[in-house]
Amino acid sequence: MAVSIFPPGSDFDNLVGAIARSAKLASHVIANTPTEVKNSVLLRASAALVGAQRDQVLRANAVDVGTAQQRGLSSAMLDRLTIDATRLTQMSEAIEAIVAHPDPVGTIKGERLLPNGLKIARMRAPLGLIAMVYESRPNVTSDAAALCLKSGNACVLRGGSEAVRSNQAICNVFAKALEAEGLPSAAVSMLPTIDREATLALIKLDGVVDLVIPRGGEALIRFVADNARVPVIRHYKGVCHVYVDGDADFDMALNIAINSKTQRPGVCNSMETLLVDRAAAEWFLPRVIKAMKEHNVEVRGDVATRDIVADVYPATPSDFDEEYLDLVLSIAVVDGMEGALSHIRVHGTKHTEAIVTKDKAKADRFIREVDASLVLHNASTRFNDGGELGLGAEIGISTTKIHAYGPMGLMELCTWKWIGYGQGQVRE
Amino acid sequence: MAVSIFPPGSDFDNLVGAIARSAKLASHVIANTPTEVKNSVLLRASAALVGAQRDQVLRANAVDVGTAQQRGLSSAMLDRLTIDATRLTQMSEAIEAIVAHPDPVGTIKGERLLPNGLKIARMRAPLGLIAMVYESRPNVTSDAAALCLKSGNACVLRGGSEAVRSNQAICNVFAKALEAEGLPSAAVSMLPTIDREATLALIKLDGVVDLVIPRGGEALIRFVADNARVPVIRHYKGVCHVYVDGDADFDMALNIAINSKTQRPGVCNSMETLLVDRAAAEWFLPRVIKAMKEHNVEVRGDVATRDIVADVYPATPSDFDEEYLDLVLSIAVVDGMEGALSHIRVHGTKHTEAIVTKDKAKADRFIREVDASLVLHNASTRFNDGGELGLGAEIGISTTKIHAYGPMGLMELCTWKWIGYGQGQVRE
Repeated sequence: MAVSIFPPGSDFDNLVGAIARSAKLASHVIANTPTEVKNSVLLRASAALVGAQRDQVLRANAVDVGTAQQRGLSSAMLDRLTIDATRLTQMSEAIEAIVAHPDPVGTIKGERLLPNGLKIARMRAPLGLIAMVYESRPNVTSDAAALCLKSGNACVLRGGSEAVRSNQAICNVFAKALEAEGLPSAAVSMLPTIDREATLALIKLDGVVDLVIPRGGEALIRFVADNARVPVIRHYKGVCHVYVDGDADFDMALNIAINSKTQRPGVCNSMETLLVDRAAAEWFLPRVIKAMKEHNVEVRGDVATRDIVADVYPATPSDFDEEYLDLVLSIAVVDGMEGALSHIRVHGTKHTEAIVTKDKAKADRFIREVDASLVLHNASTRFNDGGELGLGAEIGISTTKIHAYGPMGLMELCTWKWIGYGQGQVRE
Repeated sequence: MAVSIFPPGSDFDNLVGAIARSAKLASHVIANTPTEVKNSVLLRASAALVGAQRDQVLRANAVDVGTAQQRGLSSAMLDRLTIDATRLTQMSEAIEAIVAHPDPVGTIKGERLLPNGLKIARMRAPLGLIAMVYESRPNVTSDAAALCLKSGNACVLRGGSEAVRSNQAICNVFAKALEAEGLPSAAVSMLPTIDREATLALIKLDGVVDLVIPRGGEALIRFVADNARVPVIRHYKGVCHVYVDGDADFDMALNIAINSKTQRPGVCNSMETLLVDRAAAEWFLPRVIKAMKEHNVEVRGDVATRDIVADVYPATPSDFDEEYLDLVLSIAVVDGMEGALSHIRVHGTKHTEAIVTKDKAKADRFIREVDASLVLHNASTRFNDGGELGLGAEIGISTTKIHAYGPMGLMELCTWKWIGYGQGQVRE
């Protein structure tokens, strides 16, 4: 992580502690803020992004982009960093979509009368203070702030070094909106530095930070997971598989494979490895490889694949653990369901797995046995997405099985507490 | 943690890694074992504890108790350690109760048809491999093993040093029962040592251990939380409050306070601090303090309390953060609801909080605003218990807001994965 704006030896524990403790105090206020007021804050922020504070955000971003160019960032990275009018509109609209979503806080479920007359239920409650540690894209800042506020939480954000001015400008939009509604601006706080020591101090604040969500490359996520003293929900890489069974509809299989690989190759729910049942390999492999090549996909096959289609690159063992995030595909021939299940057990990343088959019993078994946040029958892996699954905006896709498994939206930023109404009940 | 049975310099990473990896492999088998077979394993274990393996368990326990006596353990500790015929029967019955509970695995919720025809839902799935790190009482071993197996998980257990032989004997009961049903005995594994280094190795096995649950004193829980690299669900101390509002039914308040404090003072859901509304203090404090003394409770009051009832010990500031687990009570006078809410915000431990009032609006506010795993109106704090709340046996009471908040039963040892059945859907 990059150059500090603080002198060496700065007391980050104190500095970060003070920021986080203010945010924690603000979290108690936000937790008990009515839906209408939270929505007003978000609508103010949404309007300011394309109105009153638009130029501040664009100017801050221009400085970030200029610095990044001097540092020689790749054009892909520069593109992710750049905010223009279109992207501001998208950010603004994303906040409006969160406004339109129902408030999860205070929802009641499982009401029940105990034999002793005590009425118990569960009530959805905010988590408290959420730390987000993420990289590059500044729109994550506004998405995360809006999701945390709507779900009754405060947040401390630590974005990427190259976007530090853009992120601060977006934070300022939320600060102003919070203040306009008489709420503490500390509810959306940003670390003033992306120092490694500051991040470390943040993720060790047990009792202050209730959850840390790291988003970004595997190294960042591991750094957080290895050093945090507070709960972490991880969003690791997705090495997603499509298994084409011998009993598949092969036109459907081809279509699903192409869509899973090529519709948007740079995201975590795209397919990285195609598993083909040995029973169908001779017939299906030439067709699917030809189609992949027509879509400019580089194909890397295991030995059995290359025995059938010679004209593909060899896949090394490490290929099957790689998240290419690119137009590259590895293919392995497997011995039916058992082979597919065991390949996924070894190489799967608990993200998204799909089977294509006409055999309902096989589909049911695959769906039940495969351990992934979304397991699909006869559909593209690209459906693992908060929007597609009806959650609305997501703060990430959890591959941790604890708390949330899959897309995390507003509801997953809450917990369920127990509540009970009695008439003087005591325990015998 | 106690003396090692392994020579210094033992390679615990390898040793513990091998045990945990075997258990992980077993977890894949248990995850897909039908309910009837899991129940048969549990019934075999239940029967063996009071039948064929009864004497082995009692003999192992006698050795543990003998060693503990030589080491000069307190009589309370010895009592918790000792297994007799009655306790074996209780352990056996607890397993039968788990058999009677429905299997959470494979339960479907939230079925929904997306506009594109994809049928999505969520399916309850086991977490995988659960590590339990706990102290003293050997019945935790059988409870944890039975809960993990029924919920489709495998477990690695690390109990207290003084119970190491008893725990191994109980593990052997489950190993035999698993083998009799053709299942891998590694599904219930025990660390062969309680070495600190072995525990450290266990809780750092990211990717192998899916969750660690520490149960015991605060030092043990902190040790695990500070060193784990896998998700931890904490079961910290309970400094539970009863707030007696000025608008309370004072007979009810007295009854609830006495029950919350004295019905079983040594457990985490008993009251440690009584908060009394200043508006009622003059009238209520003399009555409640008199009643507490009649129940042999040592009362420690803040200045305002002692101004009204002189004959109580002074409460120091640290009293209000202490989990006495004993017939000791601290009392603070607070300025109505605001005072109660802010006292609980500072001193609460997210465990159990109760308000006694006739004013429904105040009760609703207290229930909504207080951050605790169970918030009660007009009822004893002692109700925060898996059995009382209808979950059945519990593996602990989580004060982590992530994943589970409150008692953790079979359902909380699972996660929800997304599933989807399509007819060839791809993303546009």
